[in-house]
Amino acid sequence: MAGKVFFSVSMSLDGFIAPESLEDLMGKQWMELQQWLFPQRFFRENLALGAGGEEGRDNDIVRETFERTGASVMGKRMFDAGEHAWPEDAPFHTPVFVVTHERRDPWERSGGTTFHFVDAGIEPALAQAREAAGDRDVRIAGGGATILEYLNAGLVDEFSIALSPVLFGSGIRLFEGVDAGRLALVPVCAEPSPRVTHLSYAVRQR
Amino acid sequence: MAGKVFFSVSMSLDGFIAPESLEDLMGKQWMELQQWLFPQRFFRENLALGAGGEEGRDNDIVRETFERTGASVMGKRMFDAGEHAWPEDAPFHTPVFVVTHERRDPWERSGGTTFHFVDAGIEPALAQAREAAGDRDVRIAGGGATILEYLNAGLVDEFSIALSPVLFGSGIRLFEGVDAGRLALVPVCAEPSPRVTHLSYAVRQR
Repeated sequence: MAGKVFFSVSMSLDGFIAPESLEDLMGKQWMELQQWLFPQRFFRENLALGAGGEEGRDNDIVRETFERTGASVMGKRMFDAGEHAWPEDAPFHTPVFVVTHERRDPWERSGGTTFHFVDAGIEPALAQAREAAGDRDVRIAGGGATILEYLNAGLVDEFSIALSPVLFGSGIRLFEGVDAGRLALVPVCAEPSPRVTHLSYAVRQR
Repeated sequence: MAGKVFFSVSMSLDGFIAPESLEDLMGKQWMELQQWLFPQRFFRENLALGAGGEEGRDNDIVRETFERTGASVMGKRMFDAGEHAWPEDAPFHTPVFVVTHERRDPWERSGGTTFHFVDAGIEPALAQAREAAGDRDVRIAGGGATILEYLNAGLVDEFSIALSPVLFGSGIRLFEGVDAGRLALVPVCAEPSPRVTHLSYAVRQR
């Protein structure tokens, strides 16, 4: 049984998932957007940030999202931002397929993460990720432009949003340029936690 | 005890509350955005659309929103759109204060709705609405620009969003131009219903 293709992001109430500039990534608003995630035990363990952390529904959701993922796909912009920021033991622990125009040999990290560079477009990258994932799911990891490309191409089966009680005012909007006339959403789950509202939707083509 | 100032809107998952043009108000997307509202018994009774309709949590929320409202404030654009569209027995059944540059005598409708035209700005309009509302709340009814003016002026205590599983792609964004650096949100409630997710937040000044 083939897995699903999904994405999972934290979004501000006004629809932003990241600041305009990568230099703002450590800024106050961005930290607020991800504030629910940082204290979670699974997140901390996975990034080797030390023992401890919160357990509860938020933590379960972080762990479930990790466990369902057999392979990830990401854009070049996200890879560039992470290449020197992720620890040696990168937090994916699965194959990761980077959509790029650059040719490069696979880059193997300790702990099971191998980055594969695919210069043939989004569909071949996804096909390779599906094969690597087996019966687990493929996560379109980001960034926003890559997620939207897959969504508009009709290649996303479902997605999850951790809707944060914060307003950005500017930045990168998750759905900027979405092909709204083509996509219909079916609500799957809406679950409040103390910090965010976890929303998930299945995507149908109209 | 003075009431609170709030707004309550239906918003698409990508942040829109209305189409760009008033002519599109009866369009397919707009209908989808409000789809959760139309079948509710209280909504139908209040607009004299005939007997029957759904009862349940969505209906309770529509009724509670109506019952807490002692007076409404609206912008001229919303008034203009509704002036000939609302029935003789307009659906507010309370005083309504219209923020406008036009001088006009109060316009009394049957069933308790009287429109008062305030040409002195948003604060005097709100002051009059507060007085008229007594210990009930004042609803900033709309449209989007008026809601944002009150929000950015620090005059909104709390708000509710019925988050609809629909993507607009274009239109009027609720939070376009929000003074994000000034406003902090405190989640009050997140409640899924079969059709939408009801979210409410208290507003604090940073």
